[in-house]
Amino acid sequence: MFKINENYLKLPGSYLFSTIAKKVAAFSEAHPDKEIIRLGIGDVTLPLAPAVIGRLHSAVDEMADQNTFKGYAPDLGYDFLRETIAENDYAARGCQISADEIFVSDGAKSDSGNIGDIFDIDNKIAVCDPVYPVYVDTNAMSGRTGTYDPATEMWSDVIYMPCTKENGFCPEIPKERPDIIYLCFPNNPTGTTITKAQLQTWVDYALKEGCVIIYDAAYEAYISSADVPHSIYECKGAEACAIEIRSFSKNAGFTGTRLGFTVVPKALKCGDVSLHSLWARRHGTKFNGAPYIIQAAGAAVYTEEGRKQTKEQIAYYMNNAKVIREGLVSAGYEVFGGVDAPYIWLKTPDRMKSWEFFDYLLNELQVVGTPGSGFGPSGEGYFRLTAFGSAENTIKAMERIKTGKVNG
Amino acid sequence: MFKINENYLKLPGSYLFSTIAKKVAAFSEAHPDKEIIRLGIGDVTLPLAPAVIGRLHSAVDEMADQNTFKGYAPDLGYDFLRETIAENDYAARGCQISADEIFVSDGAKSDSGNIGDIFDIDNKIAVCDPVYPVYVDTNAMSGRTGTYDPATEMWSDVIYMPCTKENGFCPEIPKERPDIIYLCFPNNPTGTTITKAQLQTWVDYALKEGCVIIYDAAYEAYISSADVPHSIYECKGAEACAIEIRSFSKNAGFTGTRLGFTVVPKALKCGDVSLHSLWARRHGTKFNGAPYIIQAAGAAVYTEEGRKQTKEQIAYYMNNAKVIREGLVSAGYEVFGGVDAPYIWLKTPDRMKSWEFFDYLLNELQVVGTPGSGFGPSGEGYFRLTAFGSAENTIKAMERIKTGKVNG
Repeated sequence: MFKINENYLKLPGSYLFSTIAKKVAAFSEAHPDKEIIRLGIGDVTLPLAPAVIGRLHSAVDEMADQNTFKGYAPDLGYDFLRETIAENDYAARGCQISADEIFVSDGAKSDSGNIGDIFDIDNKIAVCDPVYPVYVDTNAMSGRTGTYDPATEMWSDVIYMPCTKENGFCPEIPKERPDIIYLCFPNNPTGTTITKAQLQTWVDYALKEGCVIIYDAAYEAYISSADVPHSIYECKGAEACAIEIRSFSKNAGFTGTRLGFTVVPKALKCGDVSLHSLWARRHGTKFNGAPYIIQAAGAAVYTEEGRKQTKEQIAYYMNNAKVIREGLVSAGYEVFGGVDAPYIWLKTPDRMKSWEFFDYLLNELQVVGTPGSGFGPSGEGYFRLTAFGSAENTIKAMERIKTGKVNG
Repeated sequence: MFKINENYLKLPGSYLFSTIAKKVAAFSEAHPDKEIIRLGIGDVTLPLAPAVIGRLHSAVDEMADQNTFKGYAPDLGYDFLRETIAENDYAARGCQISADEIFVSDGAKSDSGNIGDIFDIDNKIAVCDPVYPVYVDTNAMSGRTGTYDPATEMWSDVIYMPCTKENGFCPEIPKERPDIIYLCFPNNPTGTTITKAQLQTWVDYALKEGCVIIYDAAYEAYISSADVPHSIYECKGAEACAIEIRSFSKNAGFTGTRLGFTVVPKALKCGDVSLHSLWARRHGTKFNGAPYIIQAAGAAVYTEEGRKQTKEQIAYYMNNAKVIREGLVSAGYEVFGGVDAPYIWLKTPDRMKSWEFFDYLLNELQVVGTPGSGFGPSGEGYFRLTAFGSAENTIKAMERIKTGKVNG
């Protein structure tokens, strides 16, 4: 009899967003007249930029003509896109990353899950707490995390690095040495960042101890502070210890269009073996390239027009973030993030649990957010709001929170 | 120090297509005046059908408007596509497959590689020989295949099922019981098929012995013979032992557009555990859905117009297959496949090795094909030509092979 991967059975259910959806649906059914404002989800709402739309149309036209039709793409990505990325995201910031160290994919979620394939099962991972659940779940699926304790909501073989207001949401070097360290800045869910100097201490540590850092920079485009690095390769020596994952989802609204890339520098080695060659083999064997029309659209994001238009989109969301931040502060909340990231992380008032605060917001004010405890034990007592709603709804939600009631 | 997945280091290089490319480039450089005809690659050449192009454009327009913009897709695929597939590919053929048993993905290569994730490392796989290399390579990457012997080009823990003219290219039930059986019909590379009765014996065997069959039906659209099944679920009991992988690459020219799906019936269980729930968890954790515009285009393939147009494309390729088959037969070759598949598999003349025949065709006739030995030891002495070239070039190549010389 064939055998399944039993590690899957150890996974706890992923109930966060489904529980939210059920609670919202139940409220809605009981109060069909009440207008609910959703500031919970990490999905964009603005349409694709005109430069992207234009290039999608012209690329579709290319697919209609035998002379310009594109069959199988190069597994690792079209050169036109890899070169554009190398120039704009790396060379322009002084990072020595070449086009052939950039692997184009269908998105950061796939890459952050699949990257585990090239590592041995016998590696200890360290993650921030709270954290994007994909890092831990995908390692659990491959048997790298030990056993799960439902009481603590923690795995026995994972090093959790608490990120709370006490340490400014910046993880401290753990006492036990990890092999693989997941870092995500600007951070989801806390919306906080790391300075270049702080990130350099992680790079130095990884180089000294022989760790690899998996750096998720999906929210890089939201950075406005000068001392916050856009790429880990701005840090000295990072090309010998870090993999960087990027996405077009949040900088250009590609959540439903799907495009991302991962940087694996050739200098990143385990003994004599370059991780670049392993990832190239994985990519070439288990993936057949991102669609041509999507890669063409991705390159359009880097044109003068594309840059201007996507910058305007980000400014729109970041204005929402400002409205949320300022609204919460004036309502007396303790607020974090929302300056270099589209997420606002707030301390729940009166020692309320995250879910209690969720119920309060939904039932009293008809505003939906995300309970911090859903992202890990250290998220308890916190709550996430996102800047991806419409400007009108964001303002309306803040009015409700500030006045403690729903008008009109 | 972090550790890499050492299984990757056991993989032999994948040199088949790169060796072909190098030989062709060398010939081309030495003989710049000679026109080379390529009938080696399994990639389509006709542009996307007008119905598909039209839907791509309208879907792009939806992404340009805030009211119709689509963010994150459902992880497992849009209902409109899953329902269309269930109705057209399954209900219409009398197969009881429901829409929620269909998982939409970015293509059959990803799915046939990733499906291994839900199985234990300790499972013995059986593959046809010759075979599409992804099945074995992805199992090797996860440590399921033992050690590789460069002399025999075989892995110690894989059951190889020779498919040669002696058994009509239909694998026999192996003596040793496998856990996971990979079958691909219509077959790449041999272009041969299996009858419904023959496939039923495999289903019966799998049910009796507790094996799971991974059935790759990427070339289903090329079937014209009445007794050849389009889906394994046409066989009785298959929903309790088989996973089916499908692609839009070859039926609608999506090789560079990327769309596929995998069927995991809920009845397929290991003890109490439904593989459906495992694959849903894998999909939801490591994948973020195929792009909306591509899924919309996929659904357009099933419209009346789309069906008519893609059928014409397949007829065009199958006419090429007929030209190749008949040309080779009249030139005295022993030929297989090419009736229900776009691949023609020929026995090399005069006991030539596959690569010797490759060199002969390239150097003497400037026709490029694929050496059968590149697909496995039992492919030695065979050679693959594909029907994906232009009609003009296909006719011209056959003239060269029939006359044994290049005219004009």
